[in-house]
Amino acid sequence: MSAAFDLPADPDDAPLPDALIGRFAAIVGETNALTQPSDIEPYLEEPRGLFPGHTSVVLRPRNVEEVAAIMRLANETKTPVVPQGGNTGLVGGQSPRSLGQVVLSLQRLDRIREVDKAGRTITVDAGVVLQRVQEAAEEAGLLFPLSLGSEGSCQIGGNLASNAGGTGVLAYGNSRDLCLGIEAVLASGEIHHGLRRLKKDNRGYDIRNLLVGSEGTLGVITGAVLKLFPRPAGREVAYAGVASPEDALALLHLAERHAGSGLTGFEFLPRLGLEFVLRHIEGARDPMAEPHAWYILVEVSSSRSAEDARDTMEVLLAEGFEAGLVEDAAIAKSIAEAKAFWHMRESMSWAQKPEGGSIKHDVAVPVARVPEFLRAADAAVLETIPEARICSFGHLGDGNVHYNISQPVGADRDEFLSHWREVNAKVHGIVADCGGTFSAEHGIGLLKRDELAATKPALEMELMRGIKRLFDPNEILNPGKLLQI
Amino acid sequence: MSAAFDLPADPDDAPLPDALIGRFAAIVGETNALTQPSDIEPYLEEPRGLFPGHTSVVLRPRNVEEVAAIMRLANETKTPVVPQGGNTGLVGGQSPRSLGQVVLSLQRLDRIREVDKAGRTITVDAGVVLQRVQEAAEEAGLLFPLSLGSEGSCQIGGNLASNAGGTGVLAYGNSRDLCLGIEAVLASGEIHHGLRRLKKDNRGYDIRNLLVGSEGTLGVITGAVLKLFPRPAGREVAYAGVASPEDALALLHLAERHAGSGLTGFEFLPRLGLEFVLRHIEGARDPMAEPHAWYILVEVSSSRSAEDARDTMEVLLAEGFEAGLVEDAAIAKSIAEAKAFWHMRESMSWAQKPEGGSIKHDVAVPVARVPEFLRAADAAVLETIPEARICSFGHLGDGNVHYNISQPVGADRDEFLSHWREVNAKVHGIVADCGGTFSAEHGIGLLKRDELAATKPALEMELMRGIKRLFDPNEILNPGKLLQI
Repeated sequence: MSAAFDLPADPDDAPLPDALIGRFAAIVGETNALTQPSDIEPYLEEPRGLFPGHTSVVLRPRNVEEVAAIMRLANETKTPVVPQGGNTGLVGGQSPRSLGQVVLSLQRLDRIREVDKAGRTITVDAGVVLQRVQEAAEEAGLLFPLSLGSEGSCQIGGNLASNAGGTGVLAYGNSRDLCLGIEAVLASGEIHHGLRRLKKDNRGYDIRNLLVGSEGTLGVITGAVLKLFPRPAGREVAYAGVASPEDALALLHLAERHAGSGLTGFEFLPRLGLEFVLRHIEGARDPMAEPHAWYILVEVSSSRSAEDARDTMEVLLAEGFEAGLVEDAAIAKSIAEAKAFWHMRESMSWAQKPEGGSIKHDVAVPVARVPEFLRAADAAVLETIPEARICSFGHLGDGNVHYNISQPVGADRDEFLSHWREVNAKVHGIVADCGGTFSAEHGIGLLKRDELAATKPALEMELMRGIKRLFDPNEILNPGKLLQI
Repeated sequence: MSAAFDLPADPDDAPLPDALIGRFAAIVGETNALTQPSDIEPYLEEPRGLFPGHTSVVLRPRNVEEVAAIMRLANETKTPVVPQGGNTGLVGGQSPRSLGQVVLSLQRLDRIREVDKAGRTITVDAGVVLQRVQEAAEEAGLLFPLSLGSEGSCQIGGNLASNAGGTGVLAYGNSRDLCLGIEAVLASGEIHHGLRRLKKDNRGYDIRNLLVGSEGTLGVITGAVLKLFPRPAGREVAYAGVASPEDALALLHLAERHAGSGLTGFEFLPRLGLEFVLRHIEGARDPMAEPHAWYILVEVSSSRSAEDARDTMEVLLAEGFEAGLVEDAAIAKSIAEAKAFWHMRESMSWAQKPEGGSIKHDVAVPVARVPEFLRAADAAVLETIPEARICSFGHLGDGNVHYNISQPVGADRDEFLSHWREVNAKVHGIVADCGGTFSAEHGIGLLKRDELAATKPALEMELMRGIKRLFDPNEILNPGKLLQI
């Protein structure tokens, strides 16, 4: 499949010398310096299978000091280092690209350092799995709202490095917005001690937000202070069937009016997407009797009570009916059903896999322009591949569309995927016309690096390269990802 | 008073040559290149009178292109440029420091470029006065929540350059959080076109957040896309009298539980502060019959209705009474009274002026540690100046305290103010012990520049200097502010 991706994997690079591997191993201990192919394998393959990985050694430090020692040695010996969290990234940012590169896995930095209930913050190691952060918050009677499909295996450090989005962005913001402080090891091995937990802090340039979203190219995030929120007293989840993206948008506005900041989810998927889910995801069932062109998953939260959330949901759906926007709706009748509703939406990506090749996009446009974008993109795609099965879904409340295209039934997978770049170019052109972005929440990595360089203003690329040189003069941190020097 | 500030004003620097002034004037037109002392004067004095200003010429460009032309010429001739908005900054960041420096006033960049109701954004020139942004939002039936004492004269560009905070941060975030996109002219005169309006956009390093909060040292902000919010359907404002900061904190937690994200204000001031206001602010009146040690201004908003906001306020105050936290309370009975309640809080700073010299702090600590901070700081201050009148007030919900100290009654003003640095050092030491910041929302400017350099980790200062050199290699943008190269 990588035929569509003209980025060489450099597998022929010289392996690291044994002596150097030995020096790295001495930092973390032999058992945490993996060199056997079977041990290394899980760190090589990224979820989309687009970028085959290569490395001589995977290092698994236990703490910040070991990360710092690794970076000092790497900097001294100019050894490229690829930081890796849960290896769930979708753009190849975490993939080691040659035998000369070291993988620095954060997985053993897995301590929850502190939960501050009164201050509503949690301080964690970078390698803590997102779901564990959520659970620790829950145990303290609080909420950590970052939520995404891979939350059971992705790590918070990777979430921050890629500024992950997900379904909670609508009400609570993305990873960047949820982060108060950062600890990171720079290319030199120096430790940036920025674990602040203040809502207001105007002391100079915003180093934290440079590190967040830099995809491991400016520093290795080793810890973070995250915001926690009160747990809603009530939460209601419903599916609504609507006839068109325009009606979906009108329903969004109606929901915002009724629920205000209590609107904590507004996702959409097409009938085709629901069919994929029903076909391939165990336990999935159609929430409504009749089929609808589009399905909206609405979540309403209330700080007061379960009844209050229920009332709001019922009123907004009733008004949606009256306004002719909602064709039918199903409110989850139990917590288990609410979870099942969410699971169907979150399984959307997985449900596409058995349907064959899929050409993917992670775009965002101003919310009001989503319908216009979908219309234009559908026309362009079907012109190129008439039988393509368009399954665009995502975070309507954020204007974020996973504009995914499954191959025609019975088509040749590789032939279909060979259109990836061509289709990307068309769809991204329409995105640009709508004032949007071709990278909403997955980042740049390898997949979109050249497109970034080709489309970003030259001035910004030059500033980015200057920042990269400043933070990483020897270009050892995740080289070739996000940008090329 | 500037005796306490050992920063030379460099008034003896050579004035700009007339020929160069002529070249700058040719860009903006003669009438917008002010050189007469009486014309220049309003641009020289900053609100606190700590940093007397000096300049040869004030330039008032009309648009981005003129700003770019000014910066190109300045860069070519290595002429220092001091960007200035409404000249309301409290740390001297906007003050020109020598006759060799040009003031670049943004005041004529005063267009509201676009209000996007559906997308809930507003695009403005940097020189638009904050209150006009609020009003334009209101006209569109929406809310721009940034709100601060100087909103009638400060400009949005300055708010962003200093990452201004204010009373809306609790529910809506600071200026940084309210900004989606930035347009800025860099030192080279190149224009950074970053007027994006997307909630999710992961395309490389976060240049926007570098420019925001950089106090005019990395670029001249010329325009911005700002977030708008639904206007609450109901809003209630009340004063509650409480006995101690501990009780105030407990009331905050209770209010958060009841109002959730509808808690849109939680400010505090001491009895002494209220007395200053009653004495010096026209129309101010004591909201309650008996005096209380501390006064909490609570604002609750509801997306549903006025009744809903009123219910929430009544319930939370009633529970506050029952829990023994609230001694007495007064809910504003009209919109006019609600405004008057807010006006009293916002006049706090002005009400201190007639009481003589005031040693000021703009600190923040983790919210839960505010009582501990106040206790320790009070003890330290009274040890130094036994009759000092401590008037600490501010944004309790953000942990942001304006820890201001009025001179003893009848004391010598200059003698009192000569303790400024000494008192700062003690108070900021306690702030640091509490994990706080000595610059919460006012920025660094000149006032705190040397303290920043002395207290920030060397690694971060070095990164900041590197960023400054990258953006402004000739060091012409607001030189000497925030940091020294």
